[in-house]
Amino acid sequence: MRDLALSYAREHAQAHLEALGDFLRIPSVSTLPEAAADMHAAAQWVADAMRRIGLEAVEISPTAGHPVVYGQWLGAGPTAPTLLVYGHYDVQPVDPVELWTSPPFEPTVRGEELYARGASDDKGQVMAVLAAAESYLAAAGRLPVNLKLVVEGEEEISSPNLAAWVAERRERLACDAVLICDSGMLNPQTPLINHGTRGMAYMEIEVQGPAGDLHSGTFGGLVDNPFNVLVRILAQLQDGRTRRVLIPGFYDRVRPVDEEERALLARIPLTEDDIRRLTGVPKPAGEEGFTWGERGTLRPTLDIHGIPGGFTGPGKKTVLPARAAAKVSMRLVPDQDPAEIAELFSRYVRSLAPDTVTVQVHTLGLARPSVIDFRAPAVQAMARALQAAFGAAPAFMRGGGTLPIIADFQDLLRAPVILTGFGLPGDNVHAPNEHIYLPNFYRGIECLIHYYALLAEQPGQ
Amino acid sequence: MRDLALSYAREHAQAHLEALGDFLRIPSVSTLPEAAADMHAAAQWVADAMRRIGLEAVEISPTAGHPVVYGQWLGAGPTAPTLLVYGHYDVQPVDPVELWTSPPFEPTVRGEELYARGASDDKGQVMAVLAAAESYLAAAGRLPVNLKLVVEGEEEISSPNLAAWVAERRERLACDAVLICDSGMLNPQTPLINHGTRGMAYMEIEVQGPAGDLHSGTFGGLVDNPFNVLVRILAQLQDGRTRRVLIPGFYDRVRPVDEEERALLARIPLTEDDIRRLTGVPKPAGEEGFTWGERGTLRPTLDIHGIPGGFTGPGKKTVLPARAAAKVSMRLVPDQDPAEIAELFSRYVRSLAPDTVTVQVHTLGLARPSVIDFRAPAVQAMARALQAAFGAAPAFMRGGGTLPIIADFQDLLRAPVILTGFGLPGDNVHAPNEHIYLPNFYRGIECLIHYYALLAEQPGQ
Repeated sequence: MRDLALSYAREHAQAHLEALGDFLRIPSVSTLPEAAADMHAAAQWVADAMRRIGLEAVEISPTAGHPVVYGQWLGAGPTAPTLLVYGHYDVQPVDPVELWTSPPFEPTVRGEELYARGASDDKGQVMAVLAAAESYLAAAGRLPVNLKLVVEGEEEISSPNLAAWVAERRERLACDAVLICDSGMLNPQTPLINHGTRGMAYMEIEVQGPAGDLHSGTFGGLVDNPFNVLVRILAQLQDGRTRRVLIPGFYDRVRPVDEEERALLARIPLTEDDIRRLTGVPKPAGEEGFTWGERGTLRPTLDIHGIPGGFTGPGKKTVLPARAAAKVSMRLVPDQDPAEIAELFSRYVRSLAPDTVTVQVHTLGLARPSVIDFRAPAVQAMARALQAAFGAAPAFMRGGGTLPIIADFQDLLRAPVILTGFGLPGDNVHAPNEHIYLPNFYRGIECLIHYYALLAEQPGQ
Repeated sequence: MRDLALSYAREHAQAHLEALGDFLRIPSVSTLPEAAADMHAAAQWVADAMRRIGLEAVEISPTAGHPVVYGQWLGAGPTAPTLLVYGHYDVQPVDPVELWTSPPFEPTVRGEELYARGASDDKGQVMAVLAAAESYLAAAGRLPVNLKLVVEGEEEISSPNLAAWVAERRERLACDAVLICDSGMLNPQTPLINHGTRGMAYMEIEVQGPAGDLHSGTFGGLVDNPFNVLVRILAQLQDGRTRRVLIPGFYDRVRPVDEEERALLARIPLTEDDIRRLTGVPKPAGEEGFTWGERGTLRPTLDIHGIPGGFTGPGKKTVLPARAAAKVSMRLVPDQDPAEIAELFSRYVRSLAPDTVTVQVHTLGLARPSVIDFRAPAVQAMARALQAAFGAAPAFMRGGGTLPIIADFQDLLRAPVILTGFGLPGDNVHAPNEHIYLPNFYRGIECLIHYYALLAEQPGQ
């Protein structure tokens, strides 16, 4: 049955590429209010594709924002495992559009790459999921697993409505595993399974000194300058030598990393030279006592993003500013609780504030970290599927970024989440000239065919 | 002779007010390129006024920017003292113009105040200087001193061409004292002589980390964030407890303040409550071991004015910025040398920089501090003139701000500089609804009449 599906996929490669082209032509930029009609067209395209390949109960399900498209095929029966696959039909804006070699919504093949906004993130991957299901249903009349497909339209704007949508449909979405097909490979040779993400607490500190801006000649030396105070507070957030965060209690709930995970991570080479080359820094830096791989994924961080207020134009102005602010975020790891970290941060910052100014701390955003047990059978089945399709065992690492829907899926559906994908680091995701390496698009379809089969063979689902 | 002049001034008060009105109607905003014709009209007005009252060798003297107007009367003879008086005919912009009760260039009397841009800073005071000279020349046919009048057009844009103009005319401008009539009283009851100003070194620190902005999820924990580094450097510039500047060598050349000056300053009441009321801070702050008056005038300071770079918009963005900068100025006191302080600052900042980033330090501006011996006879003569006109002995204090022309006049002309004026702290100088308290305008004319007489009586000029 798996072989029939694989043969079908190979025979229909051109048709799948053309279907992807149609999908990519729809400029479904979720952040643009003027793209409302295009968002609907993209949702309609997904729903039509689901119906065409034989999914059932297909619906374009409204939310407070852009709709979620849902479809399912439950013909494998109650004893077969059920897989929920997540993807998104929305894309990032295309600015600066003048840097694109071919127009972002006119899919163009150059060499072995297909160029278009969304080619890699995430329409190409959604298409691979659809093509794999089509291959089974058309060639064998059935899938080895029950399949539930969730394709949302707000991933690029932080999925504000997805968790509520899932929460309202817990029973309908019940499954044995969730596959998020929206990431990429470590490098062209090595597939990657992300088995976790960092969370976040995004804070703003506001220091108010005088009621209005003052002349630093008249009042310099008589009142504390809010910027002078603010930098003293900010400098006490992180140790300059160890790069450890100095907020009391910050590390209390950080889950120790087991040795097996550390060993898996250590297999992924990441050297000082790699980081220098990737970023252009004179010398990398990070938390004392951890490897580069661990610093970027397993350890929490603290970054200042900007310090608004005062005079920032060219030249000089001798203002003693009334107000200074700082935007600071912390990437969090299991089992840090974002709300608790925000509270520890606020308390510590307020404890550092002198009584010569007024200090306020605001929470701008919270997101939970996640970690998935890489030993879970549904995860190990994906490792074998990637091996089968790409000829190499995948690397395992947690992602350094933040994807709150992982923790939402884990909590709401009580199922392991597998985060993988067929993009490459050089795909220019979110940038001009986004593209997908077409051999990986086809291998991605095959990988998913393998996965549907391997998941069904997995004992103990 | 002095009485004749005083009588003349009283009799011609209305004419002097009307002349001031004509002067104020010219919108001579030096910073606006489109005001070139108005700048010339104002210079012409000053030159005409000089000629009308009987000054000689009057000229509109070109510079690389706006011209300087010069006139003199040397009829007192070589044994009489020579006084050089400085003022300026340019004014500040009027924005936000909608906050003016009457149009800024339509002089309007309301109660005892005359409202117009430049009424206090500095056209009203230039007019007082002219009216005092006119009163002597018209009523007595002569002045008790030789008078040299320098009225420039670039004070509000930092006098970029004045020092060179003076340097080229050292012999012609030779004098026994320089009077800068461009400041104000301590309060409506108390005249003020400023016998010094603070200098300045204005610096910019630039920290470059990665070659471009990075995603803090992908690279957070692997490279130093330029803002995290910058705040650690900035926090080491000033002690958070003593508020002393921590740059090695910073205080080495600070001249000890003599006890007589401290005692004079101590007579000017300035309490915590005054500062709180003037600024709106929860609590004033300043350098340990000094009084409020000393902190604001005799002691050097360090202020951060702004920290450009990164993300400063509303909301959140998780950028790991490529670059962070800081604008920092230090107010300096005698005998700190601005160039040396800039060098000490640069060396110290570079010594604090880790090798994970590139740190550059730029000097944006330097200005020398100044101090005038308040015991100088020309200064003491002004104290008596103020007493005679205002019925109260003046306070003596150095100004906290920066006026580099004082040091320039001192060095180039080797004469004591007297900085005083007839404005009031509430005159809205540089702000909407600038005005002058008319009784002070008339008392200012009388003060200058007294001063011309008292300076001539002064032994040992």
